[in-house]
Amino acid sequence: MSFDNAYESLIDHEDTHWAFGTGFSEALPGVDREVPSTVDAPDLFAYCLMLGDDALVLSQRLAEWCSRAPELEEDVALANIALDLLGQARLLLTRAGEVEGAGRDEDALAYLRDEREFRNVHLAEIECGPLAGGDFATTMARLLVFSSWKIAQYSRLRTFDDPVVAAVAAKGLKELAYHRDHAAQWVVRLGDGTPESHERMRAGVRRVWPYLDELFTAHAVELRLGVDSAAFRAEVDGVLDAVFAAARLERPEPVPAARVNGRAGRDGVHTEAMGYLLAEMQHVHRSLPGATW
Amino acid sequence: MSFDNAYESLIDHEDTHWAFGTGFSEALPGVDREVPSTVDAPDLFAYCLMLGDDALVLSQRLAEWCSRAPELEEDVALANIALDLLGQARLLLTRAGEVEGAGRDEDALAYLRDEREFRNVHLAEIECGPLAGGDFATTMARLLVFSSWKIAQYSRLRTFDDPVVAAVAAKGLKELAYHRDHAAQWVVRLGDGTPESHERMRAGVRRVWPYLDELFTAHAVELRLGVDSAAFRAEVDGVLDAVFAAARLERPEPVPAARVNGRAGRDGVHTEAMGYLLAEMQHVHRSLPGATW
Repeated sequence: MSFDNAYESLIDHEDTHWAFGTGFSEALPGVDREVPSTVDAPDLFAYCLMLGDDALVLSQRLAEWCSRAPELEEDVALANIALDLLGQARLLLTRAGEVEGAGRDEDALAYLRDEREFRNVHLAEIECGPLAGGDFATTMARLLVFSSWKIAQYSRLRTFDDPVVAAVAAKGLKELAYHRDHAAQWVVRLGDGTPESHERMRAGVRRVWPYLDELFTAHAVELRLGVDSAAFRAEVDGVLDAVFAAARLERPEPVPAARVNGRAGRDGVHTEAMGYLLAEMQHVHRSLPGATW
Repeated sequence: MSFDNAYESLIDHEDTHWAFGTGFSEALPGVDREVPSTVDAPDLFAYCLMLGDDALVLSQRLAEWCSRAPELEEDVALANIALDLLGQARLLLTRAGEVEGAGRDEDALAYLRDEREFRNVHLAEIECGPLAGGDFATTMARLLVFSSWKIAQYSRLRTFDDPVVAAVAAKGLKELAYHRDHAAQWVVRLGDGTPESHERMRAGVRRVWPYLDELFTAHAVELRLGVDSAAFRAEVDGVLDAVFAAARLERPEPVPAARVNGRAGRDGVHTEAMGYLLAEMQHVHRSLPGATW
């Protein structure tokens, strides 16, 4: 694809939110792509899938709002956030493929894996959007929780042993700060708005609440790599409490994560919504394998 | 698949509603499968797709209700109706493949065609069901209209030049009579029920009404084969008027069919819902091409 000069000048600007989502030849210049000897390659592969799938699946969910948001400005904002996450997913899945060493690229990993091979948290996949009778408030509740959690995670990953993941985290943090800010503004605007908007924002928070616990349950792979998700909790709680206070929303009671034999999203055990999401996301690629344009 | 004896005795019974949907080795014994010399093969191929796709796509929509109907009995009823239509679709797509002579079987035609190659009417594909915020009343309004129209169509097709299509029509009529009866009973029960059920039934009829016009617009292929859909209208109108009168429902004003350059479902021009439906319906087959069990 090529664009006119006005667009080119926009995406050439450094640190812009558009940096990842559109084509890139060398997204992380100067970063050493050798797998470090201190890291177990299968663990790193699995962790890149976890991080990449979180971003890919939420990106797909946010893209569902395209042409359906309550106002045009918001349509563009949600599409840009989705594009940021898609960019992170591309870098992380590309890295997963490199580390695996079996010749799978970002497309093979995104479009040709089956449901049980996806390792995203449930929060990313649940239906909050316009295609399933969800609403904008629920979408913003999820985005607030997701980006607050990702910021806690990426902050620590800046010093991660793998330089590629560390570089993605460092770049991604700037984007996530914008996502969290955007979501927080809407949560406050709706929560501290009319009785109707308050009630819908309250319902949105309650809808996503059962998926919080999983975010702070460290997976064995993460622990072996020195990342303890449980340690993110206090930071995320602080952010949510501050936003909820401004939004006049009460923090719901904790809900234990739904698990099947102790397994959840990180082990490929997903909610019913995941199969439908993948069917839609993968349909074109599976219909026209290897097609390019 | 094999079942216990109680089930076998059920499906072995002649003229049962289950006859088509489960595996069959020779579904239409004694029917001559030679393409008659009086019929243009490409036209017959296209017409078999039209008829087969109508049944296949509505079957997929009805199957969405599985585990979601208002009561268990209704869950089973809708699944059986879906299974009847699936059986009709299998016979018709198998016939299409034979007539085409390019080696495509029912699976290739159902699962490996793209959206623009599907020739069902829009009424079959629109979202009325539980996955898209639709409701049971709308589903019954569609089923009433669809089966009344199909009965008019299949009645005439019993003497169609192609003996296979004629045999499918003759067998299918018994099933469609049951479908129409089932839908009519619900339309009356809800329409002539509480103010809430009446209002929802009324909304259901209005939701499907814009898709009626297409049913009675004969396609060039149909006209060349001697089938004039426009001639079905009086018969269908009579049925709908009778049901609406019993249900205390008003017949909405006619709405002209939506067309793009004069084209609609019969030419492969579909509504937005069709792509999502196909993504879900085709995903397993496209993910595991040629898989059997």
